[in-house]
Amino acid sequence: MARWGGQAHPAMRVPSPSVREAASMYGTAVAVFLVILVAALQGSAPPESPFPYRIPLDPEGILELSWNVSYVQETVHFQLLVRELKAGVLFGMSDRGELENADLVVLWTDGDSAYFGDAWSDQKGQIHLDAQQDYQLLRAQRTREGLSLLFKRPFGTCDPKDYLIEDGTVHLVYGILEEPFQSLEAINVSSLQTGLQRVQLLKPNISIPALPSDMRTMEIRAPDVLVPGQETTYWCYITELPDGFSRHHIVMYEPIVTEGNEALVHHMEVFQCAAEFESFPHFSGPCDSKMKPERLNYCRHVLAAWALGAKAFYYPEEAGLAFGGPGSSRFLRLEVHYHNPLMIKGRRDSSGIRLYYTATLRRFDAGIMELGLVYTPVMAIPPRETAFVLTGYCTDKCTQMALPPSGIHIFASQLHTHLTGRKVVTVLARDGREKEVVNRDDHYSPHFQEIRMLKKVVSVHPGDVLITSCTYNTGDRKLATVGGFGILEEMCVNYVHYYPLTQLELCKSAVDPGFLQKYFHLVNRFNSEEVCTCPQASVPEQFASVPWNSFNRQVLKALYSFAPISMHCNKSSAVRFQGEWNLQPLPEIISKLEEPTRHCPASQGQSPAGPTMVSIGGGKG
Amino acid sequence: MARWGGQAHPAMRVPSPSVREAASMYGTAVAVFLVILVAALQGSAPPESPFPYRIPLDPEGILELSWNVSYVQETVHFQLLVRELKAGVLFGMSDRGELENADLVVLWTDGDSAYFGDAWSDQKGQIHLDAQQDYQLLRAQRTREGLSLLFKRPFGTCDPKDYLIEDGTVHLVYGILEEPFQSLEAINVSSLQTGLQRVQLLKPNISIPALPSDMRTMEIRAPDVLVPGQETTYWCYITELPDGFSRHHIVMYEPIVTEGNEALVHHMEVFQCAAEFESFPHFSGPCDSKMKPERLNYCRHVLAAWALGAKAFYYPEEAGLAFGGPGSSRFLRLEVHYHNPLMIKGRRDSSGIRLYYTATLRRFDAGIMELGLVYTPVMAIPPRETAFVLTGYCTDKCTQMALPPSGIHIFASQLHTHLTGRKVVTVLARDGREKEVVNRDDHYSPHFQEIRMLKKVVSVHPGDVLITSCTYNTGDRKLATVGGFGILEEMCVNYVHYYPLTQLELCKSAVDPGFLQKYFHLVNRFNSEEVCTCPQASVPEQFASVPWNSFNRQVLKALYSFAPISMHCNKSSAVRFQGEWNLQPLPEIISKLEEPTRHCPASQGQSPAGPTMVSIGGGKG
Repeated sequence: MARWGGQAHPAMRVPSPSVREAASMYGTAVAVFLVILVAALQGSAPPESPFPYRIPLDPEGILELSWNVSYVQETVHFQLLVRELKAGVLFGMSDRGELENADLVVLWTDGDSAYFGDAWSDQKGQIHLDAQQDYQLLRAQRTREGLSLLFKRPFGTCDPKDYLIEDGTVHLVYGILEEPFQSLEAINVSSLQTGLQRVQLLKPNISIPALPSDMRTMEIRAPDVLVPGQETTYWCYITELPDGFSRHHIVMYEPIVTEGNEALVHHMEVFQCAAEFESFPHFSGPCDSKMKPERLNYCRHVLAAWALGAKAFYYPEEAGLAFGGPGSSRFLRLEVHYHNPLMIKGRRDSSGIRLYYTATLRRFDAGIMELGLVYTPVMAIPPRETAFVLTGYCTDKCTQMALPPSGIHIFASQLHTHLTGRKVVTVLARDGREKEVVNRDDHYSPHFQEIRMLKKVVSVHPGDVLITSCTYNTGDRKLATVGGFGILEEMCVNYVHYYPLTQLELCKSAVDPGFLQKYFHLVNRFNSEEVCTCPQASVPEQFASVPWNSFNRQVLKALYSFAPISMHCNKSSAVRFQGEWNLQPLPEIISKLEEPTRHCPASQGQSPAGPTMVSIGGGKG
Repeated sequence: MARWGGQAHPAMRVPSPSVREAASMYGTAVAVFLVILVAALQGSAPPESPFPYRIPLDPEGILELSWNVSYVQETVHFQLLVRELKAGVLFGMSDRGELENADLVVLWTDGDSAYFGDAWSDQKGQIHLDAQQDYQLLRAQRTREGLSLLFKRPFGTCDPKDYLIEDGTVHLVYGILEEPFQSLEAINVSSLQTGLQRVQLLKPNISIPALPSDMRTMEIRAPDVLVPGQETTYWCYITELPDGFSRHHIVMYEPIVTEGNEALVHHMEVFQCAAEFESFPHFSGPCDSKMKPERLNYCRHVLAAWALGAKAFYYPEEAGLAFGGPGSSRFLRLEVHYHNPLMIKGRRDSSGIRLYYTATLRRFDAGIMELGLVYTPVMAIPPRETAFVLTGYCTDKCTQMALPPSGIHIFASQLHTHLTGRKVVTVLARDGREKEVVNRDDHYSPHFQEIRMLKKVVSVHPGDVLITSCTYNTGDRKLATVGGFGILEEMCVNYVHYYPLTQLELCKSAVDPGFLQKYFHLVNRFNSEEVCTCPQASVPEQFASVPWNSFNRQVLKALYSFAPISMHCNKSSAVRFQGEWNLQPLPEIISKLEEPTRHCPASQGQSPAGPTMVSIGGGKG
């Protein structure tokens, strides 16, 4: 048995075959523990943090997670700081942040000893030790701040009980053990204080571009807002650029979060208002306030967006986002989403975004293009569907007409749906073959809409096709969910950030409305029930009266994957490029991207076969 | 390292951790071999065979496989006899008998040493060593007959490269190595003599019932028929029981296939004619002959059925199939299906079935019931489908009306489709919930239609539903495949053998023809192409003119899983039970059977990490 101190210790003892056999018999509770004695380092300073990313897990900040990512080793190193350790803690990941069916590490005590183990929770929330231990404890250490646990996990483990760490959103979950448990199996998550935190765990490995020497900053911040004591607040604040502010390039921006409010500020966006209005009224208040001036709805051009866990956003060295100068509005809208589940009252906040900009314009203007579905009710999701997919196209005809011969380069992407969105992906296809993923989030949440730098810039050539698919869960809805602007309607959008700027602002599609009417006619013909497909009914009314039996569901799916589309290939949301855009054929895809092959970690044989005993006794920091 | 002789040796050495690690790095071709030296037993007698099942693998009988099954250990022990060993042999399993993507054991030599290893072939037929060695060599031994290899494999291994041994048909594959190979990777199956053999590997653990001492036999054979030189012939032959033949019970039967015609005789059935007619005209000729007397259509009560690959059939000890005596016809019809794709002319055949019967009646009469789809073109499979499913129902209404209060007990089952059938399953549902599988074959082949004793007798109560689904592959067809009697048409049938006998002979369904016409109308409406749905066109003509785009395929699927059905709940094929059987609702299933959880073998940690070196030198037997 190894005895070791507070330093990270890469070598773990390989268990003997008898331990391995015992592990395979685990569940009979006859486990052989690999004991690691950890010296408690009372009051010693923590080693310099090698962890670039940090996030509070719970609203009070008792648990704080830091991490880094090795794409070479396909491994994440986690450092979990437990500020006030009671009887233990659990931490892990699950598909959508539920504590059931979660992949967990658990630090627990039976009153005498403390243990660390890779575990999982079943659908009833009961915890079980994993037959294969893939979270590997590297260090347990008392520091001034609390107990610090250092452990690592490969992205994929090939253990069916383990979560696969993928690009996009990861739902982290945690729980606090208030008292000892005789065994891991005695723990049920339903009896614990638990919660979730969404984060992009696999941050891209991008080097910071060179910044201009004449760079200046501007802070767009909430004006010492008294955060309402309610769970959800979207705060709107109107500010303006200085008089005569000329054309500049934004080259980066970063969040400014008021100290102590790290767990409260969920996301922030800066929008530029529409140039066609001379001025906008000043306002500072909840975005859904009755007092909010109507005109603020015309402040929708995104300049900057940040969400929890994100760090600074950098434009590529050769591009910047233009703002200021003639032809653009001086008025900006800051929107801050306060997530306050503990209903804390009296908290003040001045969070915002710091823009870094230069007067020395870079070679290219950056732009934002909308891909996906037109906001129209003809695209609808039947009720009680757990994974219904809608797809929007940016066709070869549109990219042929609107993109420059050298193409455009997408470097960032922000995925967007309303409440029922669960997955979003955009794929680029060329000559009928899917070529690469522009951005994919298989654990997408409408509550976590970051702008994400792409790991790899995607170049789009004239004639390419961009296919954006959204997966929705309408399991709790009784009526069809149609496309539209309302929060209870749906969207499927990928805002892609690219350069050089083109006139193409919007490249989206929807099913041809005539074919949808054929569908309603067919529904009428096949069903004895009365379905209102009379011409005077609106499309939402027609959808509302469809009896959602298996036939009507499947035929709607078949319609969406067959019927011709109507394209929006637009310069601005109202101005189309010239050409015929109705009754366009669906892009034909003759070869799909292959699923990535999952690597099982080579180090599998070296992980401990049972839980690790940990000494966390000793004085407080 | 262990040195051991010719006796089976249950204990294998557990490899040291270093070997395990090396195994996980396999693919870099740096493997550490666990060497087992096997003493060559020259000329010694083989140990008494503990293997109840035996089959030649190749047409010449060079390779012979014996095996047994342990349901407790979930393991198959194989004994492969190689009569004339050249440079090696490969043996294994694959989805449908292909040598590509197969799970293999390979015995090969590099000229100096011989090796035995668990391997797999990729889609190009190249062979690779498995990272996880699940075929475990227990003994290699020279005998008088040849080299005998004894090895075992768990049903499931949790290795994605391994075949899962399941109930139903298993496609065994083999190959003969004529010369040494420097490495396993140097072998490509395309350069070898290879072949396949279909077998039910997981035979039920049923003992042969006691047979009555007064058992007699009777042969029902074709009268030296000149087999027509056409692909498909159903030959009908009328014969009769001896005058005054009293009531007997058939307790077993077996096929008699004329030597040389083994590949020609596809299936045979013996039917008893209807009792309401005094006599039937004698006839011997094709069943579809214009000369066939109309009355022979009343000879449809199945007495015995055999198909390619089946062996003798035994009734349970408490039941027998009644024939003879008052109230039953003396006339029998033998139907032989000759499948003659090479259009051989001049072949004579006297195949038939030998019945074993007793005058000492058993407690229960047994019967045969047809489940699945009605033979009608309204059930069709689009072309170019690799896994299209059609489903036939035996509804609660029919079982309620036709079954006795105490229910019936199904003890055997014969699955039947024509050439494109790939899977067949019948599931029993009660109160809308799937309860158990009656019979399942996920590797079904139309060339291997055995009557199989069930591992577990299934009791069907009045009100139960029996759902029979067939999966078809029409990947090589250009037109739709419709239901019907022709060999190029399709069937989906499960002949279940049960007791006590009821009047219900046929419990099958098909989609309502009116709804199918709605489908053709819809196809017309949605497609610009001309589709012949004119009322004078036959259903096969209508299907032949459907343009098979994704929409028409998906809507046909949706139709079949939604539209009401027409039930055949028949006493004999022409006489329905009283009641309304048209436009019946599809049975609603609210809970499906769960997929069985796959056990990874507990002994996983004990299998060798690399190939095993084998001494197969020494003199010949």
